[in-house]
Parts: sequence; structure tokens; C-alpha cells
Amino acid sequence: MAAPIRVTVFGENYHEQHDESVQKLYPNGLHGAIAEGLNELLGEGVEVRTVVMDEPEHGLTEEVLANTDVLTWWGHWIHQHVDDAVVDRVHQAVLDGMGLIVLHSGHHSKIFRKLMGTTCNLRWRGGENRELIWTVNPTHPIAQGVPSPMILPSHEMYGEFFDIPTPDDLIFVSSFDGGEVFRGGCTFRRGHGKIFYFSPGDQEYPIYFDPDIRRVIANGVQWVHSERAERGAPPVIWKRIKGYGPDRDTAADLAEAVARAEEYGMEIIKTTANQVTAKGAGGFTTTIEV
Amino acid sequence: MAAPIRVTVFGENYHEQHDESVQKLYPNGLHGAIAEGLNELLGEGVEVRTVVMDEPEHGLTEEVLANTDVLTWWGHWIHQHVDDAVVDRVHQAVLDGMGLIVLHSGHHSKIFRKLMGTTCNLRWRGGENRELIWTVNPTHPIAQGVPSPMILPSHEMYGEFFDIPTPDDLIFVSSFDGGEVFRGGCTFRRGHGKIFYFSPGDQEYPIYFDPDIRRVIANGVQWVHSERAERGAPPVIWKRIKGYGPDRDTAADLAEAVARAEEYGMEIIKTTANQVTAKGAGGFTTTIEV
Amino acid sequence: MAAPIRVTVFGENYHEQHDESVQKLYPNGLHGAIAEGLNELLGEGVEVRTVVMDEPEHGLTEEVLANTDVLTWWGHWIHQHVDDAVVDRVHQAVLDGMGLIVLHSGHHSKIFRKLMGTTCNLRWRGGENRELIWTVNPTHPIAQGVPSPMILPSHEMYGEFFDIPTPDDLIFVSSFDGGEVFRGGCTFRRGHGKIFYFSPGDQEYPIYFDPDIRRVIANGVQWVHSERAERGAPPVIWKRIKGYGPDRDTAADLAEAVARAEEYGMEIIKTTANQVTAKGAGGFTTTIEV
Amino acid sequence: MAAPIRVTVFGENYHEQHDESVQKLYPNGLHGAIAEGLNELLGEGVEVRTVVMDEPEHGLTEEVLANTDVLTWWGHWIHQHVDDAVVDRVHQAVLDGMGLIVLHSGHHSKIFRKLMGTTCNLRWRGGENRELIWTVNPTHPIAQGVPSPMILPSHEMYGEFFDIPTPDDLIFVSSFDGGEVFRGGCTFRRGHGKIFYFSPGDQEYPIYFDPDIRRVIANGVQWVHSERAERGAPPVIWKRIKGYGPDRDTAADLAEAVARAEEYGMEIIKTTANQVTAKGAGGFTTTIEV
Repeated sequence: MAAPIRVTVFGENYHEQHDESVQKLYPNGLHGAIAEGLNELLGEGVEVRTVVMDEPEHGLTEEVLANTDVLTWWGHWIHQHVDDAVVDRVHQAVLDGMGLIVLHSGHHSKIFRKLMGTTCNLRWRGGENRELIWTVNPTHPIAQGVPSPMILPSHEMYGEFFDIPTPDDLIFVSSFDGGEVFRGGCTFRRGHGKIFYFSPGDQEYPIYFDPDIRRVIANGVQWVHSERAERGAPPVIWKRIKGYGPDRDTAADLAEAVARAEEYGMEIIKTTANQVTAKGAGGFTTTIEV
Repeated sequence: MAAPIRVTVFGENYHEQHDESVQKLYPNGLHGAIAEGLNELLGEGVEVRTVVMDEPEHGLTEEVLANTDVLTWWGHWIHQHVDDAVVDRVHQAVLDGMGLIVLHSGHHSKIFRKLMGTTCNLRWRGGENRELIWTVNPTHPIAQGVPSPMILPSHEMYGEFFDIPTPDDLIFVSSFDGGEVFRGGCTFRRGHGKIFYFSPGDQEYPIYFDPDIRRVIANGVQWVHSERAERGAPPVIWKRIKGYGPDRDTAADLAEAVARAEEYGMEIIKTTANQVTAKGAGGFTTTIEV
Repeated sequence: MAAPIRVTVFGENYHEQHDESVQKLYPNGLHGAIAEGLNELLGEGVEVRTVVMDEPEHGLTEEVLANTDVLTWWGHWIHQHVDDAVVDRVHQAVLDGMGLIVLHSGHHSKIFRKLMGTTCNLRWRGGENRELIWTVNPTHPIAQGVPSPMILPSHEMYGEFFDIPTPDDLIFVSSFDGGEVFRGGCTFRRGHGKIFYFSPGDQEYPIYFDPDIRRVIANGVQWVHSERAERGAPPVIWKRIKGYGPDRDTAADLAEAVARAEEYGMEIIKTTANQVTAKGAGGFTTTIEV
Repeated sequence: MAAPIRVTVFGENYHEQHDESVQKLYPNGLHGAIAEGLNELLGEGVEVRTVVMDEPEHGLTEEVLANTDVLTWWGHWIHQHVDDAVVDRVHQAVLDGMGLIVLHSGHHSKIFRKLMGTTCNLRWRGGENRELIWTVNPTHPIAQGVPSPMILPSHEMYGEFFDIPTPDDLIFVSSFDGGEVFRGGCTFRRGHGKIFYFSPGDQEYPIYFDPDIRRVIANGVQWVHSERAERGAPPVIWKRIKGYGPDRDTAADLAEAVARAEEYGMEIIKTTANQVTAKGAGGFTTTIEV
């Protein structure tokens, strides 16, 4: 039997501390309800932990991320207070192969914007809106086991234009009472990581208790989970195909790679027998494999 | 007749100052050769200027960008010395609708990585390689007027895996003597801007004098050029569709948007009758339209 | 100045003959209104002719297609009476590089289904529905010059799931009063031809007089119009890259290609100095280029 | 434990009867080697049967297809002799949700062309070519467990332009000694079915004994296998969302749907309490759900 997927559910946990209505709806926090849904539907297939913003390093230490296969992200009101160092770390983990699910108002989180490269702006209206969530990709694993449309009797409105790159897979499109539409379920690949954005649920509505929404998030966890054996972002590769050209001297190549990284102004952070990892332009960590 | 496309050709201009071989090949700089090709092929359809790294703000001031329809970017050796403030400005200009062509080693530039959200790493080998550039999208405007394959008798090798998001359009795929392949011609949309990445040409080879390569870059300029009437990134929109719900009070909505941006910790940088623009999380400038 | 785009507007012209309401709305036929819109917006940039189902070969003779750069297709009630030979001919013309715009109920036409390979089924409800057409790809040439949303006060409803292949570009998504959504503006590439499907307008509503709808169709004509110099579907290519391997004997290669096509049971329909064209499996005409 | 995937391996079985070299390489037929690879790698996860062209209805009866989750297709020399009725049946099964893997020269099969809507032509050269198969989508399930590149010491050459629609996922790109490139591993969705095209292996080379190639095909079987509970192509849907508009009379709606199908000239082939299935334009079977 496959090892359980290790899921970390990140909750901003701000509204739960400040808004009575949210406390009432989500006594264990939105993160608590999300975690509960995953345990309910995936059982022994997952090991779920929750972390919140107030913890040191927002609970997202190197060690936690190293032991996380899939991270889910709910944030809203205090995106700007998320530590840039943590964002960089999560970004690196995604490129290394960690799956990521960004929920609802996480569209404006630093991590989602950094991965997308766009504003992730959208059309917005609060208040009571009936949302219908339609499947436009019925063979996608994430769309299995839920009706089309799913119906949310009351929700806030997110509409187009949603400023994201063209999704790899567009799975769900929502409509709202006001006539708006929204590409609210879509996937992206970045480095060795898979990402699923899913637009429900606002903190004022009991969305994360809805069995269909829970099913979609559970499907999402399984889909973004990497099947690659090892973690690590795509390296710069100097290796040749065997048989093309003269044999290479790996040690010499490695020395050259190190020299080049230094000349290039990068900070060497790790070397192995055939790899050098250095930090350089734009905060990116680059590994050269020889 | 349509107004000419205002093109700014950015050149790093490092190798031209430090490597005799490059000076000899490109006496007017790589940027000079690129600009020359555009003038030759597009004539009165373009107004081309060149800027180089050494200029104040790398020549990419607010004013220059405001008057640039399409920016081409060639950089290689000193990516890490490009000022982050300039990178943010170029990023904003792309989201606002400026077209961008990233050439060759610009794959590792800060601006390309910021737009892609990935490492943009690739496989690499210097030395003499025959590169064939095949068209895999023969109806794309950028592929018109060139043979398939285009042949570069000698070039350095860029190979897969190229760590980019799935391109919107994959136009060219290269092969090399060593058996490598590379998705060397592809497009991306980010905000209101269009981007074309094109993998030729290394500074040691006379690639930017090649008529086919020049044709592709000229096609690229025309394709990334926005047809939108106004510049500006996709805003957050609070407006309703006319006829849905009660009429709105724009002034009250604007006041609420301002209050909300402030509460959110954003710095207000501009207000108009129906818009407020503020700077917030992740360095993004956000406009709310009411 | 570029030569005008030669547009052929195909109209089924059934409802115009049988339904008084349609006669009244469209005294010159739906095809007439579509043609009028193109002339109005593109002027000397187009040469527009209309053809209707009742004409011999539905007006779509070899000669007409050979002189058509872009074909627009409106059909609904008598798809099944469209001659298969004409469908095959239009299909070949698209693969050869003719642009195609399929409108509204043309989703179920033989030609669209043949190009898509799917049922092109959808959700449907007649009667009065308010349709909003949202732009989800604001940099696409087809989306220029129209508001988002465009508003159709009354229309019939087309909804998801729309059984089409993943579009190359998704440009417009509609919503309807009943809460349905529809990917009503999308593009596809097939062979050397470009295709635009656009879901407005039902024959009972004056959709093709709407200035925004006319603008989209005019944009569509310009976009699907091929920029390739010559017509012809992608051939099977036996040619080698110059310089790889020993020189080829073109005459011998051609003889082998002919022999092979015959052995393969294909009917030879044309030979030139370096090409043989034959008809074979699945009704496809294949050209081998040596 | 999940039920095993029921795989049917279709082999043309022509070369195995006529060419001594193929008989020697593949004493159990290419289909035999493909089936063997699936059994070896997927064990109890699959139930594999083989069928060949010479059988009545090519072994692809209604009953066989109804009990097939995934069909693999290898054909080459006698595509044109595949019965159109069988092709239509396989096409319908794919739209209904059966997975399909098309191998190598199956690119020119009737079924692949019918699903793609294009010529599926390509560049070709026989003889000994070294093929390298590069992964360009390293997170895709089909790419797991194989190196990049996979190396085929000797194969025939398939090159671009490959006349297919833009793939949903581009997974593998090959290079050849002659400098050609080929998008040889790609996926498509059609109706409720998923399709994987994979370009190895020619009958003259022992490709289907290669462990990497076997792994890719096994991964492909798992990926194209539908997770949907029921078979059936996407229907035309007349149903409304509960709560929108007055309640519907299903019986009356069904009667109207039947009447409409008949008026439309379709042949009614099945009715249930809320569905009518009829055969109409272009040979498509359409189900209306009320």
C-alpha cells in the first residue's frame, strides 16, 4: 500500500480570532474544517496537520515543508504580513515538487502571485449570491464524484476577468446571480510542482462543510501530489548523452561549474559529487548537474 | 495608416565591452544588430531605440517604458546586477500591456523568471553545435516567412527540460547535434501583456544577422504588440452589471475602496473619479475600479 | 495594400423560408445580415459573397472554395441534408488553409463535428434568456473593441458541458439567467486552417444586427484568415535536410512514393516533379513530398 | 482493491504474417509483446486480451468494446481495410469514456484521424536512426519511472510537422540522427474519453520489448482509464437547474424531445424514462436528457 500523502493545511486564522460570525461558523477554524474534510474522505490515505499564521515562521519551517507532500493555503486579510522568507521557501518547495492547493481569497496571496507572475486580480462583490459551479472538463480526476453544477446557495461573488496565466487544465467555471462567470477551478504546473486553484469558500459561509466541496479538495490533494521519487527543482544540466562526443571528466566539469557560479556572483550553498547548488539572481536557487 | 510600433531594444552590452570576439562579430552590439534587423524588415512600421545596462536605470526609465510598445531583452552575464526596481517596473509595464520579447540567455533574467514563476533552468553545452529550428505551429503569425527547419550552422546548445510553465503557443522546437531538443519558440500571456521567448542567439555567433532569425523577431514584435487602446493592468472590479440589483453610489463605493485598501495596509498612490490605485502585498500595484 | 480577404458567408436559409418571424427579423436572411456586418466594418478589406443551401452543391463548389479565404457557417435545422461530398470538400479546404467561422447552431453541423471529432453536444433551453458574454482572454485580437460583458437582452440558452476538444484559445464565456455558463468563443487549429466558434445568434433574435457581435465576427474573419502564401494541407514529407546523409535522387524517390501509394491501395490523383497526391483511408487526400 | 483495468490490445497482424523479419522479432505478434509488457508491469491491475484484424469485426464487437476500459491500437499497412462500421463503433466507445492508446503508425489509422479531424501526416524516413525521447512534462503521470532521454538505438524517423490538433498535454519530444524532432508523446480528450498517442515502435525493431517503452505504455493505460462511474457520451441536456423557473413535466419534455428528433430526421434507437437516443447527421448518435 502506498504511503499516506502528508498534507499541511495552512490557515491564516485571522477572521476566526476577530469576527464572531466566523468563530461561530468555524469553531475549529477554516483550516480545521478543511483538515476534517480530508480525513473524512481520504482516511488512511492522508496524514493531515494544520498550521496557522501566528506560529513561528507561520508554522512553515524548513522541516515542516520537507515533510509536506501537499500544502493547502487559505489566506485573506493579512497576506501582506506573510514573511517573504517563508514565501520564498514555499515557492522553492513547489518547484521542488510539493503539491499546492490555493483556496478562495488565496488568489491574492504572495505565494500564488509569485507562482503566476500576474496580479491575480478579479471582479468582486460581497453579499449573498447563489453560485453554480459547472464542470467543463468531465474526464479530469479532480471533477470526479461531484454533480455539475454544484450549488452554493450563498457565497460572495468572484468574476472575470481573473488575471491569471492560461491554466493547464480548466475544470470548473462558476456563475453567479449577478450574471458573472469565473474560472474557479484550474491547474498549473510550475517546476516539479502541481498547483490547483479552487475558488470556494468565503469565511462567512459554511462552504468547507459542503460534501461536494470537500470531495473536490480531496481530489485536488490526490492530483497535485507528485509521483516523482525525489524532491528537487529542475536543475541546469551540463551532462551529455552517453556516446555523444568524448567522455567527460565529471570532477573537472564540477570545478568549472563552481568557478562559473562564483564568477557569476552566486553564493555556493551545497556541492555533491556531481552537483553544485548556488543562490543567485532573483533569489532563485540553481543547481548545476554535471 | 497605423502608428509605428515603438520598440525598445535592451542590450546587456557586457560581452561587447569585454570579449574581443564579440566586439568583432557585433561592432554595434547585439542590440545594434537586433535593432538593425527590425528597421530593415519593418521599416516605417516601427520606431526603434536601443538602451544598454550601463545607462542610468539601465535606460528603462518610467518615461521610456511609457513610450515603449514592445521591449526586447538580451542579457546573459550580469543578470544579477539588474536593479530590482527596474525589474518591477518592466514587470508592471508588461502587465499593463507592453509586449515583451525575451531572447536567448534572457531565459535566466530576473524579468523572465518573475513573469514565469519558475527557475527557467535548462540543459546547456557550449561549443559548436548545429541547430535546426522546426516549426510545429505552421499557422502561427510568428512562423510566417521562414523555412522549417531554419538552420544555424553553429550555436551553443540549449536543451530540455526547460523549466517554464506550459506555453500558450508552442511555435518552434530545436534539435542539436548532440541529440538534444528545445522548445525554443513559445508565447505566454501575462496580465494585458504578450510575451515571446525565442532561444537564438549566443553572443559568439552571428545569429542576429541571419535573415530568418531577423524575420522571426520582426514577426514577434508585431505579435506581442498589444491592440488594446489603453495601457493598464487588469484591475480589481467592484462595478456591477447595469440592471442587476439596486443602483450603486460610486462616490460611496470609492470611499469604501480607499478605506479598505488602507485597512489592508496598502499605500494609496492614485485616485480618480472611479478608481483607486494602491501598493500592497508582494510589491503588486492594485487598482480597484468602482 | 494587402489584397482584400475573400469571405463566403454560408446560410442554411431554411428558417427564412419557413418561419414568418425569421423572415421579418432577417428579410435578407441571416447570411445577408452577417455579410452586411462584415462589409460595414471591414469595408475594402473584404470581398463578401453569400451562398445558401438550396444552390447546387450548396453554393460551395470547388471553384468557390478555391477563391474563399474565410468561410462562415450558419446552419441549424437541416444539417443532416448537407451533402457529405461538400462536407469533405470544406474539410479539405480548411486543412489546406481556409479560415472557418462556425456560428451558433453550427455547433452540430457535419463540418464542425468532423473537425472536432466529438459530438459537440451541449445544454439547451429555448425561450427568453439574458446572455452576458464575458472576455476571459483580453489580449486576444478577436476580443478587441467590445465591452466585457457584451449583453444580449434575449437569446436562447447554450450551456455546459459543451463536448468539444480543449480549445486552443478560450476567449469568451457566457452566462444565462438560468445560471448556466458556456464557452461560447473559442479557437482551434486544424491542418493549415484556423477555426473560430462563436455561439450567438439564434434565428429568432436580431443578434446579427448587434454592433458588438458584428465586431467580434469581423475580428474573427481577420484572425482565421491565413497568412500562409500557398494553400495545401500538411503533406507527408520524405525530404531530408540538406547535408544529412547522401544526396537523394528525387525522381527515384517519387517513383517509390507512387509505387508505395499504389501498393497501399490509394488512388493517385495528381503528380508533380516532387509530389504525388493520392486518396486513401478515411477519405483523406494525402500528398507525399520528396 | 480497485477492479482490474480491462485492456484490449488491437494488432493489425499483417507484417507478422508477411515479413519474415517481423515474425522473427515478434513471434507472438506486436500485440503479443505489448500485452506481455502490460501484464509484466501492471500484474493484477489489468486484464489483458489481444484481438487482430483478421477476426470477425476485427475482434472489436459491441460486446468486446462494452467490456474494454482501455484499447491500444497498432496498425500500419492495411488501415484502409479497417471496416468503417468498426471505426464508428470504436469512436463512439471513446466518446463514451473508453481510453485509447494509439501507437506508432496508428497515427494514420482511420480512428485516430476521425478523432483528430486532421490528416495526421508527418515527416518520414525509414532506415536506422538513433531516436532520443525527451520528457518535456516531468510531472505528468505518463512520464514517471523512465529516464530523459529514453534511447532507442535504432528506429525509423517520424518528424515534424505532425499534423495534429494542439495536444492537451505534450509529454515527450523525440530527436533523430537526421536532426528531426517529433512530438511523439501527447494526450487528447474527446467526449468522455482520454487518448494517448505514443510514437515508438516500428515493426522492424524490438521496441516493444524495451523496458522504458513498456513502462510508458503501462503508465498510459492507467492515465487514459476513465474514473467515471458510467459509460456514455456527453448528451444534449434539456434539464433545468432545480429552482430556476417553473417545475418541468419530464414526460412532456421527453415527448417533445422524441418529436423533435423525428422531425429532425433522426432515427430513434432507444428511450428511457428521461432520455431518448437517436442517430442523425454525420453518423453521430445523440442522447437528449430531459
